[in-house]
Amino acid sequence: MQVKLSDLGMRQRPSDITRLMTFALKQPNMLSLAAGFTDNESLPIEDIRELVEEIADSGAKGKTTLQYGTNKGRDRLRSLLAKRIRSLDTIHESQLDEKNLFISNGSQQALYLAIQTLCDPGDFVLIEQPTYFVFLEILQGFGVNAVAMPMREDGEIDLAGLERLLSQFESTGNLDKIKALYLVSYFSNPSGHCVSEKVKSDIGSLLSRQKVPIAVIEDAAYRELYYQHPFESRSTVVLESFNQLPVLYTSTLTKPYASGLKVGYAYCSDTKWLNSMLSVKGKQDFGTANFAQAILEYALASGRFDTHLTSLRGLYQSKMLTLHESLGDSLKSLGWEWEEPKGGLYLWLKSPNEMRTDGESQFHKSCIENGVFYVPGNLCHHGNEIRSQIRLSFGSLNLADIREAANRFLAAAESMTVSAIT
Amino acid sequence: MQVKLSDLGMRQRPSDITRLMTFALKQPNMLSLAAGFTDNESLPIEDIRELVEEIADSGAKGKTTLQYGTNKGRDRLRSLLAKRIRSLDTIHESQLDEKNLFISNGSQQALYLAIQTLCDPGDFVLIEQPTYFVFLEILQGFGVNAVAMPMREDGEIDLAGLERLLSQFESTGNLDKIKALYLVSYFSNPSGHCVSEKVKSDIGSLLSRQKVPIAVIEDAAYRELYYQHPFESRSTVVLESFNQLPVLYTSTLTKPYASGLKVGYAYCSDTKWLNSMLSVKGKQDFGTANFAQAILEYALASGRFDTHLTSLRGLYQSKMLTLHESLGDSLKSLGWEWEEPKGGLYLWLKSPNEMRTDGESQFHKSCIENGVFYVPGNLCHHGNEIRSQIRLSFGSLNLADIREAANRFLAAAESMTVSAIT
Repeated sequence: MQVKLSDLGMRQRPSDITRLMTFALKQPNMLSLAAGFTDNESLPIEDIRELVEEIADSGAKGKTTLQYGTNKGRDRLRSLLAKRIRSLDTIHESQLDEKNLFISNGSQQALYLAIQTLCDPGDFVLIEQPTYFVFLEILQGFGVNAVAMPMREDGEIDLAGLERLLSQFESTGNLDKIKALYLVSYFSNPSGHCVSEKVKSDIGSLLSRQKVPIAVIEDAAYRELYYQHPFESRSTVVLESFNQLPVLYTSTLTKPYASGLKVGYAYCSDTKWLNSMLSVKGKQDFGTANFAQAILEYALASGRFDTHLTSLRGLYQSKMLTLHESLGDSLKSLGWEWEEPKGGLYLWLKSPNEMRTDGESQFHKSCIENGVFYVPGNLCHHGNEIRSQIRLSFGSLNLADIREAANRFLAAAESMTVSAIT
Repeated sequence: MQVKLSDLGMRQRPSDITRLMTFALKQPNMLSLAAGFTDNESLPIEDIRELVEEIADSGAKGKTTLQYGTNKGRDRLRSLLAKRIRSLDTIHESQLDEKNLFISNGSQQALYLAIQTLCDPGDFVLIEQPTYFVFLEILQGFGVNAVAMPMREDGEIDLAGLERLLSQFESTGNLDKIKALYLVSYFSNPSGHCVSEKVKSDIGSLLSRQKVPIAVIEDAAYRELYYQHPFESRSTVVLESFNQLPVLYTSTLTKPYASGLKVGYAYCSDTKWLNSMLSVKGKQDFGTANFAQAILEYALASGRFDTHLTSLRGLYQSKMLTLHESLGDSLKSLGWEWEEPKGGLYLWLKSPNEMRTDGESQFHKSCIENGVFYVPGNLCHHGNEIRSQIRLSFGSLNLADIREAANRFLAAAESMTVSAIT
């Protein structure tokens, strides 16, 4: 396979998330319910000011936060994060060794490293429907095939269907090309769905019975962004049925605090896989920015992180409710469907009569004309023709703008109904 | 090509730089002249405190430095950096469009993206002897072959030799597999060498005459870390002979200011290649940490960056002189050779009678026993058997420790001479 410079543009298609984020940032009059930005008003700049004061006041130790760090990340931060996972999963120290945890440039980089080290072009990765759309772009970038798992009506993976799917791969001799199963298990981007412990546990049992090892990548980016209560489902790090499987658990300090710091983390149960990811990270950047890590380490250690997170939970719930209620009965009476999430940053809508909502659709155009922007749901799917869903993010807009955006969205929805009647 | 999980450890060999940096950080009694860390004492923590104050005081604009940014990087920072390159190269605005400039996680990520988008396994990249050893690891990680260019005695590329090399590739039908030529053109890591404008310009002419486009990657990480005067050689961005070639110019705000912030930048003359790199970056992290970028943007705009850099120049010169003079006549009398650099962080030593200095050598063991650590020069070579060179970094140690490290190094060198005699 030879690639000439003139073909370079063909090697990578433009990233949808990049395009959407850039578009949203450059259209000041557009109200964007698209990009998964976090709330602007509540960004903890005063916290950061004081944390940097604290770092600057701590002498030589503070100064060296401006030095290179290690490839794996700051020891104390990794220790605090290991404790954090243990506490969420109520497990003992011995069951989660912080040696297996590393810091990444957002959880995004950990997902990228996972696929880069696991897969070759032509391999397969199992995904939920819908799934995190940037993950689909990562797969596409490496020439890896996404395989949508059969889903139940309630948004859970259909275990019997998954078993049949695996059998089909086995019967065609392709089972060993399935390298991973990807789960967005808490307040999913885009659907807000949580995977129950029972289903998760059954997945572990099913995969453990296969003749080849299939890695599990659990993306827990929104796990702590619940509104009232954590979702009661332990992670693949601790569930017994995953004991014999290579597991990567990824999460982030970005979404629940300050996305501009871009610090994520990952725990990997398989030492070889971990070392392989670290080796690639050593070439990409030999370590995430030490200073950004230090700020988050101090934020976690001082309790500021959790204080902020607690206030964010209430804030996002009120933003969610504002969008949910502003669309409310009016939109439902037009036949749109969605569920009220219990955490995360998104509403996941289904259009009436499978009306198309993709980027080429009349509805999408109508929304842009009305000054509101969303993520077409088809970007979150692969290998099917579902084009009638929409992800709305209420993360970045303030309450007044959320109401206005909802009105614009409603106007677009109503115009479609009118044009369908007339 | 199938890779099973059990083979994962084989896909990537451990990174030398990662190993060295970790080793150096974990041996408190070892004096490390190995890793290219920057000076600890002078790290600008007070600058950072005040810059964060300034950001925090600037209202909504300041707050949004904690929000996601764009994939390409902050507009104002990119504009300031474009101006900076223009000023170094004394060119007009029209000749360098800041649209073609993006921000990366240190210049390391830009180098990684360059190879990831240009090359397929089995391709070739031309390198200097010696060259930046982490770049060799990037090539190895992608299965790309490094091809050492013939060099003159004075450290410049031998143009006639390079022409013969290209002819050989053409005659075997492999010319189109050479994807890039990599130059570390200012105060090179590891040799301190600068590429003259004449040689650089001739390289452009030679490459322009080839039947296939060969990209040029100019690594200018140390360009501004001169001691007294900038090295008088314009970059490939502006030199006329490169006009028709795809050029990537990479540099960093890390080495000359605060390595813990990890912000680099790259200018690419080829829009397709640029977009290809940005597309991959969109998948790796969709943008370098916005807050770290903002700190450096404010540091550049306020003049703090340049004030600090000016003081660093004097500091590194005095550190270089301390190491240079501490080794001085004693080491030279043993037959060791090196030149006094005019910028950068390294001395590049040749051992007497080609005595081995690689990681397996008696001399390396002797240095470790004496409590001093260096980078074996063979890591900076590929495709030859040069094992008698050494890179010494004076970046991180203070003056007293540099003297002590020099004494330990001398003791090791003397012990080898004694053991050779006895």
